[in-house]
Amino acid sequence: MSNSDPHGRARRRASLLATLLLGWSVTASGAAPALPVMPRPAVMNAGSGRLMINGNATVAVPGPEDARVRGGLARMLRRIEERTGLTFARLPDDEYVLAANATGATLVVQIGASDAGFPSLGNDESYTLEINATQAILRAPTTWGALHGLATVQQLLRADASGWFLPAVSIEDRPRFSWRGLLIDVGRHWQPLEVIQRNLDGMALVKLNVLHLHLTEDQGFRIESRQYPHLHELGSDGHYFTQEQMRGLVAYAADRGIRVVPEFDLPGHATSWVVAYPDLASAPGPYVIERKWGVFDPVLDPTNPKVYELLGGFLGEMAALFPDTYLHIGGDENNGVQWNANPKIQAFIREHNLKDNAGLHAYFNTKLNAILTRNGKTLVGWDEVLHPDLPPGSVVHSWRGPEGIAAATKLGFPVLLSNGYYIDLCHPAGELYWNDPLPAGNRLTPAQRELVLGGEATMWAEWVTPETIDSRIWPRTAAIAERLWSPSEVRDVPDMYRRLAVVSRRLEDAGLQHESFLDPALRRLAGDGATPAGLATLRSFVDLLEPVKDYRRGEQQPAAVQATPLNSLVDCARPDSEPARAFAALAEPLVSNSPATAESLAAVRAQLFAWKGVRTILSAGVIATAPRLAEARPLLESLATACDIGEESLQLLEAGRVPADGWLTEKLTRLTACAEPHAAAELPMVPTLRLLAAAASEQGKRGRLSAEEWRQHLDSILTPPAKSAAP
Amino acid sequence: MSNSDPHGRARRRASLLATLLLGWSVTASGAAPALPVMPRPAVMNAGSGRLMINGNATVAVPGPEDARVRGGLARMLRRIEERTGLTFARLPDDEYVLAANATGATLVVQIGASDAGFPSLGNDESYTLEINATQAILRAPTTWGALHGLATVQQLLRADASGWFLPAVSIEDRPRFSWRGLLIDVGRHWQPLEVIQRNLDGMALVKLNVLHLHLTEDQGFRIESRQYPHLHELGSDGHYFTQEQMRGLVAYAADRGIRVVPEFDLPGHATSWVVAYPDLASAPGPYVIERKWGVFDPVLDPTNPKVYELLGGFLGEMAALFPDTYLHIGGDENNGVQWNANPKIQAFIREHNLKDNAGLHAYFNTKLNAILTRNGKTLVGWDEVLHPDLPPGSVVHSWRGPEGIAAATKLGFPVLLSNGYYIDLCHPAGELYWNDPLPAGNRLTPAQRELVLGGEATMWAEWVTPETIDSRIWPRTAAIAERLWSPSEVRDVPDMYRRLAVVSRRLEDAGLQHESFLDPALRRLAGDGATPAGLATLRSFVDLLEPVKDYRRGEQQPAAVQATPLNSLVDCARPDSEPARAFAALAEPLVSNSPATAESLAAVRAQLFAWKGVRTILSAGVIATAPRLAEARPLLESLATACDIGEESLQLLEAGRVPADGWLTEKLTRLTACAEPHAAAELPMVPTLRLLAAAASEQGKRGRLSAEEWRQHLDSILTPPAKSAAP
Repeated sequence: MSNSDPHGRARRRASLLATLLLGWSVTASGAAPALPVMPRPAVMNAGSGRLMINGNATVAVPGPEDARVRGGLARMLRRIEERTGLTFARLPDDEYVLAANATGATLVVQIGASDAGFPSLGNDESYTLEINATQAILRAPTTWGALHGLATVQQLLRADASGWFLPAVSIEDRPRFSWRGLLIDVGRHWQPLEVIQRNLDGMALVKLNVLHLHLTEDQGFRIESRQYPHLHELGSDGHYFTQEQMRGLVAYAADRGIRVVPEFDLPGHATSWVVAYPDLASAPGPYVIERKWGVFDPVLDPTNPKVYELLGGFLGEMAALFPDTYLHIGGDENNGVQWNANPKIQAFIREHNLKDNAGLHAYFNTKLNAILTRNGKTLVGWDEVLHPDLPPGSVVHSWRGPEGIAAATKLGFPVLLSNGYYIDLCHPAGELYWNDPLPAGNRLTPAQRELVLGGEATMWAEWVTPETIDSRIWPRTAAIAERLWSPSEVRDVPDMYRRLAVVSRRLEDAGLQHESFLDPALRRLAGDGATPAGLATLRSFVDLLEPVKDYRRGEQQPAAVQATPLNSLVDCARPDSEPARAFAALAEPLVSNSPATAESLAAVRAQLFAWKGVRTILSAGVIATAPRLAEARPLLESLATACDIGEESLQLLEAGRVPADGWLTEKLTRLTACAEPHAAAELPMVPTLRLLAAAASEQGKRGRLSAEEWRQHLDSILTPPAKSAAP
Repeated sequence: MSNSDPHGRARRRASLLATLLLGWSVTASGAAPALPVMPRPAVMNAGSGRLMINGNATVAVPGPEDARVRGGLARMLRRIEERTGLTFARLPDDEYVLAANATGATLVVQIGASDAGFPSLGNDESYTLEINATQAILRAPTTWGALHGLATVQQLLRADASGWFLPAVSIEDRPRFSWRGLLIDVGRHWQPLEVIQRNLDGMALVKLNVLHLHLTEDQGFRIESRQYPHLHELGSDGHYFTQEQMRGLVAYAADRGIRVVPEFDLPGHATSWVVAYPDLASAPGPYVIERKWGVFDPVLDPTNPKVYELLGGFLGEMAALFPDTYLHIGGDENNGVQWNANPKIQAFIREHNLKDNAGLHAYFNTKLNAILTRNGKTLVGWDEVLHPDLPPGSVVHSWRGPEGIAAATKLGFPVLLSNGYYIDLCHPAGELYWNDPLPAGNRLTPAQRELVLGGEATMWAEWVTPETIDSRIWPRTAAIAERLWSPSEVRDVPDMYRRLAVVSRRLEDAGLQHESFLDPALRRLAGDGATPAGLATLRSFVDLLEPVKDYRRGEQQPAAVQATPLNSLVDCARPDSEPARAFAALAEPLVSNSPATAESLAAVRAQLFAWKGVRTILSAGVIATAPRLAEARPLLESLATACDIGEESLQLLEAGRVPADGWLTEKLTRLTACAEPHAAAELPMVPTLRLLAAAASEQGKRGRLSAEEWRQHLDSILTPPAKSAAP
């Protein structure tokens, strides 16, 4: 799952300039911000007035008894108490007091029918919410819709000097796609129970409804098998979920309207399986747990009957443990090395007319599917499982490219999209947001479109620990959640970012640590001698960095192994620098085809000055004494150089003076160098400075070109020649 | 455990001026700071040079195999990796590579004899540590000493521009007292497993060796009983430790050289027992779990044979669960209401010649002790268990006052001191530090002194949650740990504070959150609209606040119940304001009997100016819009008023001008008002400003008095008249 183009690199390049040039124009236009709810409801009309919330607020839950809704309500009330400091009335047994009837209650939660079973694909998840100055009424036909409605209420709560309130609003809401998932890879770096739990709370807040647990990897086998205990005992360093824990986790998820789909990656990515059972591999053992990152050779031997014996037992056990209908069998990235080298396996292919390794893989999947069918499960697998022999009804999970959707649906298979949702590759939320399982202008037939179930954000875990994983998942995954829930027309990136900043706070309220992990991590890096002022400056700098994108971190840090501490500078950098985005917006007027205003020049100049100040302060301060910050130095120097070039561009724009020939080429070369990563981190404001340099250099042409022509002209200057753009 | 004088209020008053006037003079003298190790070793001589630590560092562990030492070593290495970013060599099974022999190893850990049993009172805990430029050698006769030595190594590790190193040093270390504990009350506010675990890690770092778990309270019964499951099922809201979890926790503690002593508070503080078994109470039920704070009536009925039947079964079960010899039976604060009101009980007292309720309590303890003896346990109880009939060998735990130690040892009972170590009462570390189980000049006989086993910091949990508890325990408990471990002569408060700041960082490295909880909590209080600058200013302000001391929080917030969110302003304030201490040091030259220097005047003036700026910024900023910060307003106004008075004092001192009659009286009255708490928080710099005002007012007498006379003169002016000083 790591060496292809799962983020759609080509598409991304094309869209980069669009972000810089167009994305921010909406900010500038000053559109009224929508209510900070995410995902944005299908229909939402703001009313007038507000429903004030104080400690006397009451809730009525008429209608059928529903333990899940009651639980969701209690969690919501507790979270509101913690946020507001209010204390709502409780009974002696510590349950919240409920109003006897709906009249006069502050909030009424009315469900149609209670569902005590586990959530399943295709559940009705709709709800309506009416808030006026006297009452909020949440209505939902099902448990699941009611839980979503409570998440909306929680997000709507706001405060100003007058106190806490819910704004008057009328909402009719339902999801666009029925499968809205987050994959968490607990194989490569172990993530304990509390990490999964807090992420389930975050998922519930943004209405995601599938937790895809990637439970087996070359680097770890993370689930207890009672039938084959050597699997987890020898394959996990002791880091695995017991069946009891997993049962609790599945219930925890179900209480939040979330299905748990387990993945057991087969037949490749199998090192941790064959530590215990080397005989099942396609080459002789022994094997040890893999500690490095990449695609490795160990793969199960589909010609060995013992493989099916073990899988029959193990998957039967797992089928009983996980109530969901769907079971993910992976199927990705078998590099073929062991199969090719094994004459017995190649002979088997020939004897069974399987044609090639792909045929053998399909054979294996057919056998696997028989086991699943026997256990009442439907198979899900990555792109590579797509084969004419794949059993009908199997779900193809597309990771390699958007063409996967077309290919699979053409053969009649339901599909999930993860290509473009690879959050581990550190692309900004705006890009993830644009990635649509059914983009406008797609060429799928109506029947094919019906097969697109939704998608999943994928948190692959080469580079995350329990300390940092939240910051790689959130808040960006909320943008994906909106793409999968909200109508396709909801596409206003600046508005999304405005709401994302608010929902990010609510996600922290729910227990996630994507914001709060940072300050302690920076204190650790800066060491004992750092002053509060030094730390604040370091924070400004780190807010400005982004981790390298795609698979460049592995290139930058090839010596990294599973035990490498992941708490260095790049781990503190987050994938979507807000200051860099704000800077692009600030520079926007200067790169338009209108003359530079003094105000814009001053604003951009002040920012560049401040960034150079960061360099000065840090170089003389913490970086001089903290060994762990030595790696920041080249980045600080690049920052200063880039700012110097920015200042030159400003001078030219201010003077309306076109520079000498060669100026731009030289500056772009130097800016390209400034964009070079160090210690796996990079400076995301450089593209804006490139644009600024181009605008300064080309300003003579500005008056003669339309706004659009001007953009295209700058674009053509800045797009690197085809050769260097190739991967 | 809540309405007496467990902090020694009288002693504290006497010492307050001493802190302000004398404590800081050592800072000013510029004594060379000791190595930042805490507790300070018994003997420590700095050498010259340093042992550099990089990723090639190696460890040798010659001598007997010892899983605990190996575990402690692995934890230390991992923590060093996380702090430094280094990665040490590992075997395929993920264990660290150990050097084959001691020659050439960076660190050698040599133990005399391995101890695979549980730690017990009186274990040899000594070790020696020799570090020179080529090697560090840790030697210990026991497992327990070796673990302490590893904690010292971890604390010694430092960095500068040249990299990471251990300073050359020669240490011979052993504890002064053998019982060095931390009590955590999980009854009043539940504290889950991970809170206890991270606190055990903190305890190990500062060589505390007893975790006293207060497992039953009016507000919660926190341990699973298999024989009487109604106890935890009905008495805990589902928040309790299972026996399996507790067994794991005891092992976790033992791996860190820490004994676990459980407390089952009997016969009072018993509400949660009688929820399940109302018949065992001394008055008719039914009972519900108590949700408020205070001393409550429910008490077991010592005349009821069923009480001993249940306790026989339950304590037998607990005796098997907790391997330590000692078992704490509480025994405090039976208010006598139920016993007095029950004619059957009063008749029993008469019939058995028990004299009074105290006699009945002694009768109960004798019966209880028989159960403990049967199970091989020794009784520990609070002050109130002291009675001539108390079985010999029982340990008396002194909480009400220092006289408890004398009284108990006079009767030949071993004792523990907690009076003066009530960390929940929010006194500064300097005060806790002075509190000595065997203070200089004590009048105990040598035989009595032998009976003083040590002491325990007590974290009573009326006002703490898992989010804030670390900030109430740490870093101050490290000062208590030093008092209990280090020689009695180690008493330099400024040096203690310097080292405390460093060990506080190491405690965070170990997983505690006493520093890191704060920024997220402030973000929550400030609400969504707060800017980074506003938050930084809020942080400055909160750093300046302290929670009210002793039992004033209950007076300030009488409506608080168990469910009240404890994340308001006062919960963000911490008990030992560093800026207030620094301000006292800054003002020190101005309150001496020498004329004010321009430098000191300027420094103090700048601080007052900055604090007034905090008021200005916050009042116009976050406080104007965040409902949760409204309660900060009176405190900000008091701060500004106090600063104004401070500025007046500075003007007088600068001009050498004595103010008119009545000036000081008026200012002190106003400063007294400024010292009034709001929202359970107070301004700890006010005493310094009172001192400054007195120095300004009395400066005319300065030349005529010796330094000591001058101090006494100011002291006499500022000590409130006897009447208002009474509690």
